[in-house]
Amino acid sequence: MVHVAGGRLLRTQGVTAPAGFRGAGIAAGIKKSGKSDLALVLNEGPDLAAAGVFTLNKVKAAPVLWSQQVLTTGKLRAVVLNSGGANACTGAGGFQDAHKTAEEVASALSNWGTETGAIEVAVCSTGLIGDRLPMDKLIPGVTEVVHELAGGISGGTDAAYAIMTTDTVPKQASLHHANKWNVGGMAKGAGMLAPALATMLCVVTTDAVATAEQLDTALRAATHLSFDRLDVDGATSTNDTVLLLASGASGVTPTQDELNAAVFAVCDDLADQLMADAEGVTKRVKVTVRGAASESDALIGARTIARDSLVKTALFGSDPNWGRVLAAVGIAPIELDPDRISVSFNGSPVCIDGVGAPGAREVDLSGIDIELDIDLGIGNESVSIRTTDLSHAYVEENSAYSS
Amino acid sequence: MVHVAGGRLLRTQGVTAPAGFRGAGIAAGIKKSGKSDLALVLNEGPDLAAAGVFTLNKVKAAPVLWSQQVLTTGKLRAVVLNSGGANACTGAGGFQDAHKTAEEVASALSNWGTETGAIEVAVCSTGLIGDRLPMDKLIPGVTEVVHELAGGISGGTDAAYAIMTTDTVPKQASLHHANKWNVGGMAKGAGMLAPALATMLCVVTTDAVATAEQLDTALRAATHLSFDRLDVDGATSTNDTVLLLASGASGVTPTQDELNAAVFAVCDDLADQLMADAEGVTKRVKVTVRGAASESDALIGARTIARDSLVKTALFGSDPNWGRVLAAVGIAPIELDPDRISVSFNGSPVCIDGVGAPGAREVDLSGIDIELDIDLGIGNESVSIRTTDLSHAYVEENSAYSS
Repeated sequence: MVHVAGGRLLRTQGVTAPAGFRGAGIAAGIKKSGKSDLALVLNEGPDLAAAGVFTLNKVKAAPVLWSQQVLTTGKLRAVVLNSGGANACTGAGGFQDAHKTAEEVASALSNWGTETGAIEVAVCSTGLIGDRLPMDKLIPGVTEVVHELAGGISGGTDAAYAIMTTDTVPKQASLHHANKWNVGGMAKGAGMLAPALATMLCVVTTDAVATAEQLDTALRAATHLSFDRLDVDGATSTNDTVLLLASGASGVTPTQDELNAAVFAVCDDLADQLMADAEGVTKRVKVTVRGAASESDALIGARTIARDSLVKTALFGSDPNWGRVLAAVGIAPIELDPDRISVSFNGSPVCIDGVGAPGAREVDLSGIDIELDIDLGIGNESVSIRTTDLSHAYVEENSAYSS
Repeated sequence: MVHVAGGRLLRTQGVTAPAGFRGAGIAAGIKKSGKSDLALVLNEGPDLAAAGVFTLNKVKAAPVLWSQQVLTTGKLRAVVLNSGGANACTGAGGFQDAHKTAEEVASALSNWGTETGAIEVAVCSTGLIGDRLPMDKLIPGVTEVVHELAGGISGGTDAAYAIMTTDTVPKQASLHHANKWNVGGMAKGAGMLAPALATMLCVVTTDAVATAEQLDTALRAATHLSFDRLDVDGATSTNDTVLLLASGASGVTPTQDELNAAVFAVCDDLADQLMADAEGVTKRVKVTVRGAASESDALIGARTIARDSLVKTALFGSDPNWGRVLAAVGIAPIELDPDRISVSFNGSPVCIDGVGAPGAREVDLSGIDIELDIDLGIGNESVSIRTTDLSHAYVEENSAYSS
C-alpha cells in the first residue's frame, strides 16, 4: 500500500472497490483450456456516466467499433469482456456477434432486475485475431455471468481473472481517497502491447460524482501519461480499450484535478503491473529521455530506444552495450546533437557527450530493474517509457501462440 | 550463375572481378579472435572516379565522417576497411584515428609505388560501438596489407573475409557484361541491419568508364531499391557505407541505363546474401505490399510488417498467424481501408477483404522461404522488403555480443 493522489493505493481490489459496482467472472467455454473467460462489470448507479479511449490501430476489432458507438452517449450500465478470442478481422458477422452479446447482456440484466438497453453495454474482447467467437458458448455464458454478479470486492477479482490471456497474474488497483470516494481498475495485456491511447483491455470505476465530460478529461490525461508510455513490443492491438465508469454512489464530487490525479494513479499502477507481467519479461526497464527540445521529441526518442531489438536483447543479456542506445536514438526523427548525448545505466554514466565513459563496460545490469537515462543535452523536456527486454521466452511464447 | 542486366552474375568473385582493382585482407590483431580483420581495395586506374552513400543515422561513426569528406572530391584511390571495432562514439580522438589510418594507407601505397594522398583514401569500420581502435595493431597492419595486395580475384575474396563480423560467410557478387566491362562488389552485415541509404559496409567496383556523377546516379538508384529494402531488425547502423569505384580499365563507356542496371544487379544480389546470412535467420522472408495508394505507402507498410516482432516470431514458429499481419499494417501511418485488405502466405489466401479465408490456419510455412503478400486494394503501387524471422538464435547472438 502506498499513499498517492490524496489516498491509499491497493492492489488487492479492482473495479468493485468503489461503491455502486458489481463484478463477475466465469468459465463459459470460450477458451479451450476451460479457464475463466467471461467477465461482467455492472454499474448500479445512481449515475451511469462513462468515457472511453480506444486503439489507434486502423484495423479495429468488432467490439471496439461497437463500444465506440455506445460511448457517444456518455453513459454505460455494464461492460462485458471475454478472453479466448479477439473478434477482430471477422467482418460484418463479427460485428453482429458483438451487438448480439450486448443485447443478451441487456436482456439478462433486465431479467435480473436491472433495466438495461443494449446501447448501455460496452463489449471488449481479447485473444486470437481472425476467428469468430463461439456464440453457442458465449450466449449461455452471459446469462450465467449475470447470475454470478456478486456484491463486495470478490466479484471484481473474478472479473480480473476472466480477462487474462497470456497474463500470468490478474492486474487490479484501487485508490481510496481521504475524502471518502474511490477509484478502482483492472487491466489485462502481456503481448501486442504498445497501447496507442489505451491498453489492451482496462476497466476503471469510480464512485465519485462526475459528468461524462469530466471522466473523459480525466481518462485521456491519465492514459496519455500511463498506458501510452508503455511499449513492450511496438505492436498496437486491434482491441485496445480503456473504459471509465462513474456510479456517483459515494455522493462526493471531487474537483477535476483530484479526479485526474486519482484516475492517473490507478492507470499508472496498472501500467506498471502490465510491464512486470509482459510476455517473456526478465527485466523491467524504464527508458528516460531528458534534455530534449520538446516533449514530443523526448517521447519519440524514448519509444525508439524502447523498441530497439538490439537494445532489448542486450538488456536480456545484462550487457551494458550503450553503443546500441546511441545507434537507436540516432535514427529517431528528432532534434539531436550526437556530441551532446550522455547516457547512464542504473545511475552509472556510460557515455558522456557522445563518448564512452571510463568503466562503462563494467556497469552491473544483472538485476531485474534497469533504468536507462539518456540526456540529449539540448532542452528541458523529459519523458519516460516503460518497457521490457527481448528474451528467449518472448520468442518462445510468440512463436507458438495460435498453433 | 544467372543472366541479368546484359551479363552473367557470379558469386565467386567480388571487388577484384573488374579490371584495374587489387584487393587484400589480413589478420592485423584488431580482433581478439585472431581472425582476418583488415581489408584494402586499390583502384589502379586509369580513372579514379567514385561515389558513396552513407548511413542516415544522426550518430555517425568517425570513418563515415571522414569518408563523406573524402568523397566530396568524387575520387578514390583506395578503401581501407577494418572489422573488430566500429570507431563510433569515440569523439575527436576517434576521428583522428580514422584520419591517421588514411594517411598511413596513402604513405604505404606511395612507398609501394602508387602515389596516393590521404584525401584519396576512404575508411570503413565495423564492430562494437564505443571503443577506440587499437592503433598499435592497425598501423603496422596497414603496411602489411599493402604488401599483400594481390593481382587477380583472390585478393578480393581475402578482402571480403576480412570485413566479416557476425557474418558466417563472405558476400561477393560480380556482373560480367556482354560488352566486356564488369561490376564487382563485396558486403558485410548480419545485424543492426536496416540500412538507410546504404548497408553496413559495401564496396562496389567497375572497370567501366564513368564520371563521379554517373556513378553517384547509378549507386543511389541501386541502393534505393536493394539495401534500402532490406530490414532485418529495424536497427540502422552508425557505420553504414556503400562505395562505388570506377577504374575505366575496360575502356568501355556504358550508357547510364546499362551502368544503373549492372550496379543494381550486384547490389541486389549482395542484399539477398545479407538477408540469407542475417543474425539468427531461420526464414528468408519477402514482404510485398501491393495495391497501395503510393510507393511510399507501400514501402512504409511493408517495412512496418517486416519489423513487427509478433509477425517475426510467428514466422519463426511457421505459424500462419495472419491476424498479426493485419494488426501490424493497421498501425502503419498510411492510407488503408481495413475492409479491403487481402493477405496471402506463399501464394495461399489467408485473409480476403479483411476477413479470414477458409483454411487460413492450415497454410504450410515450414519451409525456409516465406512470401507475405498484402494487397491493400486501393491503388497500384507495390514494394517488396527482404527480412527474416525473429528466432532464439537472434536473441542468443545479440544478448552476448559485447561481453
